[in-house]
Amino acid sequence: MHKVVETLVARFGDRASVNEDVRNQHGHDESFHEMVPPDIVVYPNSTDEVAEIVSLCAEYRVPVIPFGAGTSLEGHIAAINGGVCVDLSEMNRLIQVNPTDMDVHIEAGITRKTLNRLLGSHGLFFPVDPGADATLGGMVATSASGTNAVRYGTIRDNVLGLKIVLPSGEILETGGRARKSASGYDLTRLLCGSEGTLAIITEVRLKLYGLPEANAVGVCFFDRVVEAVEVAAATIQMGIPVARIELLDDLQIKAVNRYSSLTYEEKPTLFFEFHGSRHSVVEQSERVGEIVKENGGSEFIWSDKQEEKNKLWQARHDAYYASMALRPGCRVWTTDVCVPISRLSECIEATRKDVNEQNIVAPIVGHIGDGNFHLLIVVDTQDKRELEIVSGVNERLVMRALEMGGTITGEHGIGLGKIPYMRLEHGNGVDLMRSIKKAIDPDNIMNPGKILS
Amino acid sequence: MHKVVETLVARFGDRASVNEDVRNQHGHDESFHEMVPPDIVVYPNSTDEVAEIVSLCAEYRVPVIPFGAGTSLEGHIAAINGGVCVDLSEMNRLIQVNPTDMDVHIEAGITRKTLNRLLGSHGLFFPVDPGADATLGGMVATSASGTNAVRYGTIRDNVLGLKIVLPSGEILETGGRARKSASGYDLTRLLCGSEGTLAIITEVRLKLYGLPEANAVGVCFFDRVVEAVEVAAATIQMGIPVARIELLDDLQIKAVNRYSSLTYEEKPTLFFEFHGSRHSVVEQSERVGEIVKENGGSEFIWSDKQEEKNKLWQARHDAYYASMALRPGCRVWTTDVCVPISRLSECIEATRKDVNEQNIVAPIVGHIGDGNFHLLIVVDTQDKRELEIVSGVNERLVMRALEMGGTITGEHGIGLGKIPYMRLEHGNGVDLMRSIKKAIDPDNIMNPGKILS
Repeated sequence: MHKVVETLVARFGDRASVNEDVRNQHGHDESFHEMVPPDIVVYPNSTDEVAEIVSLCAEYRVPVIPFGAGTSLEGHIAAINGGVCVDLSEMNRLIQVNPTDMDVHIEAGITRKTLNRLLGSHGLFFPVDPGADATLGGMVATSASGTNAVRYGTIRDNVLGLKIVLPSGEILETGGRARKSASGYDLTRLLCGSEGTLAIITEVRLKLYGLPEANAVGVCFFDRVVEAVEVAAATIQMGIPVARIELLDDLQIKAVNRYSSLTYEEKPTLFFEFHGSRHSVVEQSERVGEIVKENGGSEFIWSDKQEEKNKLWQARHDAYYASMALRPGCRVWTTDVCVPISRLSECIEATRKDVNEQNIVAPIVGHIGDGNFHLLIVVDTQDKRELEIVSGVNERLVMRALEMGGTITGEHGIGLGKIPYMRLEHGNGVDLMRSIKKAIDPDNIMNPGKILS
Repeated sequence: MHKVVETLVARFGDRASVNEDVRNQHGHDESFHEMVPPDIVVYPNSTDEVAEIVSLCAEYRVPVIPFGAGTSLEGHIAAINGGVCVDLSEMNRLIQVNPTDMDVHIEAGITRKTLNRLLGSHGLFFPVDPGADATLGGMVATSASGTNAVRYGTIRDNVLGLKIVLPSGEILETGGRARKSASGYDLTRLLCGSEGTLAIITEVRLKLYGLPEANAVGVCFFDRVVEAVEVAAATIQMGIPVARIELLDDLQIKAVNRYSSLTYEEKPTLFFEFHGSRHSVVEQSERVGEIVKENGGSEFIWSDKQEEKNKLWQARHDAYYASMALRPGCRVWTTDVCVPISRLSECIEATRKDVNEQNIVAPIVGHIGDGNFHLLIVVDTQDKRELEIVSGVNERLVMRALEMGGTITGEHGIGLGKIPYMRLEHGNGVDLMRSIKKAIDPDNIMNPGKILS
């Protein structure tokens, strides 16, 4: 390791840092997971430089940990075996937009907000929105999705191709610009959600969408969570192409009201967004309004005013920090199960019961059109007993989701936090994953200890 | 091999066949590729039986070739090293439909038409439609798509999970019932398009869609192919959610008219289908009508009458046989490139020029919303010189598509036919694919010689 650090400092000058603050900042994501700093942080500005770094690490069998914006939630970037953190933030160029084909070629370090700012003038946007201003490389690596996956799919559905650096230092391109392909094994999708354990992603090609002619938001509340879930299920079943359906439970609304000085009724609430032609947006919201009425919801208030839209989605995106503010000094332990929508209200109700019984603070937000919801458990990470209680709630939730045919993670990935549940979900699929990992990274230098222990 | 055949005959009785006709029928797909029969054909009726067959083959290192409906187009099922053909047609049960979740669990041997017949009573359908009445297992294995991928995505976008039998005979489940997951490597997508070279697919979980409230078809023709392509590109860019946009060139229309006794004007033609609410279908077709007008097309004739719709799609689906009928006794060599839509008309025009110069018969049909089109080259497979000419046209087309950032196969897969072009498309990605194949199937018993030589 010493030799590698020395070589990197000599080669990259002030683009390599062994400063403690810098290393610490790169040793943790936004979650409650423990910070474990890398030995050095390097800031390459080209794929060739990434290849050079990885080749050096391969030679000395030193761990390599790719770093985007550090917004992941499962300890993905903790350097548990030490090693070299490859920070891709300087690789943030937009290489080419193709408006006719509605695709874009970017470097992996660009963030989604920056990308969308650059795309706006072309009348295009990239819809996948995990809330945080993550890098696109990080979003591919963790198989991110977010609020509007219900309409536009996850990032997995929207990646056309990648440039990657393999553990050997070799550079490789996967996919291409065609909208679809049946050409051999789907390496692009294999890399999606591989969390840096197979390769470093340095460039990405994405599908884009035309900015909708019109959009509008809607909000309504319910006496019980189950009614809100039924509205979401009915909306999907009727094929109404909503762009977003987000559930916030009563506690989450309370947190959001307090944090953002809002005055929503403190009841289980649905936030909607509609995209389409002017006429279609009106038609969609009218039809949703009817479904809400039939299911005992409040009046359905919709708006196409920019100010209203911003206010609503700002509130939604602040949910994480709003929850954290419920108990100053605490961190948030986020769960991420995704279940068939027919089981969703049962899953949420059983989980809320458990939360109440254990007397913990855990608002709920959910991308419920997909059956995906998060408990934002506000936890004092210094309190061992409390951590144990939360761990129990989390484990029972995971088991409940698996029994319902669901997954332990809809969009956050495995990282460190969900490794204990991998075999419960995948059975001997874990061995197949392990043999793929071994074939591609025989010396286990790529983000070791993540996904597979 | 002898020992394996003997054991299988003893174990499976009349569900194992060494009859020459049966073996020959299983030795070729619908393409021009040479027939190479397997040594024996077995008809298992459970995953356990498939596992038993594969275990036996693993023990004796004998090739295993999965067989669905035999409708593939690249020699996928030719038993080039002999071996055991596993015909899944008896595994055709619908295991469970979940109308609330809009998903279905089936055995791999069910065909798409049968599946859709069974789903109709639930108001649901599975949209992926490659034309042929393929099995769903075969469609996953070849990464199929077809006419309405432009709206609903390919089969890769619509598979939730699989049950598979690995080369060791071990049974494994991938994915699940959640609509999305970020849980470890995406084994489901790795299997999609693996063409039987990694495992045998025995069960499939699919996303379903609600039958649209309304649907309608439209047809219009153009003086030049380029105008038709521009209409398709503009339709996509404007975000009009068309269910299908199919191009048939003048020769293809001529073939279809002759084969199906129709009277379409013999010019480059677009077939459209619209799905949605009654109002949305009208709005969509009106907007497309305007785009057609602006681009110099004919009057846009649309209809929501079932008879008209059937006639139009029957004509489209008959394109393959209509083309073959242009030269009785000949076979069809189908190409399958997919390019960025901005390059599509250029690609088609250059290809038509080449076809004309070489004086071959090759109508064109295209899923042009995706940039994917097929030359249906009608070829006398007994005429070596003609085969060479066609091979040259095919090779130049493949090179043209790759230069344009496209893929050599949008939806038919690699099989035997496209192996020579794998490295041109994927470079050292081929080596990565090979290391994955080796990790999963070290003895190379799973459909050997396909995808990778």
